[in-house]
Amino acid sequence: MSENTSGADNQQERFLVHPFTSEYVVGLVDGEGYFSVTAKIRERKNYRAHEVSLVFGMKLSEKDGKVLEFLRDYFGCGNLHYCRDLRENFCNCIEYQVRSQKDVLGIIIPFFRKYPLKFPSKQKAFKYFCEIADIVIKRKHLDEKGIKKIQHLSKLMH
Amino acid sequence: MSENTSGADNQQERFLVHPFTSEYVVGLVDGEGYFSVTAKIRERKNYRAHEVSLVFGMKLSEKDGKVLEFLRDYFGCGNLHYCRDLRENFCNCIEYQVRSQKDVLGIIIPFFRKYPLKFPSKQKAFKYFCEIADIVIKRKHLDEKGIKKIQHLSKLMH
Repeated sequence: MSENTSGADNQQERFLVHPFTSEYVVGLVDGEGYFSVTAKIRERKNYRAHEVSLVFGMKLSEKDGKVLEFLRDYFGCGNLHYCRDLRENFCNCIEYQVRSQKDVLGIIIPFFRKYPLKFPSKQKAFKYFCEIADIVIKRKHLDEKGIKKIQHLSKLMH
Repeated sequence: MSENTSGADNQQERFLVHPFTSEYVVGLVDGEGYFSVTAKIRERKNYRAHEVSLVFGMKLSEKDGKVLEFLRDYFGCGNLHYCRDLRENFCNCIEYQVRSQKDVLGIIIPFFRKYPLKFPSKQKAFKYFCEIADIVIKRKHLDEKGIKKIQHLSKLMH
């Protein structure tokens, strides 16, 4: 590294080459991540469907959006989208979300079981998130009792 | 560990025994921490004082306050205080702050120089925070040019 590089340049360089570690990701998600569940019963004339959506995500100001690209690459799943916000004193954001059930069950949940969150509020949200995932895995969300239980658990998450 | 302990109990136990690592702290501070500076010129009849205050802190909902106790223990400095908030949809918080100049210069700055933050916005705030600290160390904040420079840099932090 050239002796002329400034402190800021050095830091940017470290940022770019320094990979995310599991512990860093846990700290970041404790502070900024979220687990959310929506459970709907859709009724039409000729059908009744139970839809459960499990989402892991993180929303940051667009100026820190690069971090979410690293996070997506770290997990190897999920997508980024841009959220424009025209309100005064609000800034545009980037949101990272993992919505694919396969990825939530196969990547996100196993990761946070291996590397537990430390915030009591996040531990609680994750615990209920996993209970809901378990109901979905067992296909119990398709019956009335199962979907009602998910709706109840999703309220307890927050 | 007893086989009868629930997942939540296991997680709580892991939380209690699992020490904070530098990487976890960096992730947490990237998401939730702040660096702030106030620089005032106090003028009275018989004196004129330049006061610069460098603060590192983090404010969390009281339900996650335990994390801040761990953070204070991790750094071995700083204090916690309780922030009551009676507004609707707002919750009471715990705030961790390191305000002692000795601890900011001797513990906090060296830590984040060794373990760089990854959020561009936090890198920028920390860079200016260090520049201001440098002015204070050299006692240049006591002259007019120095305090004005600090006031300018503190605006660039955010």
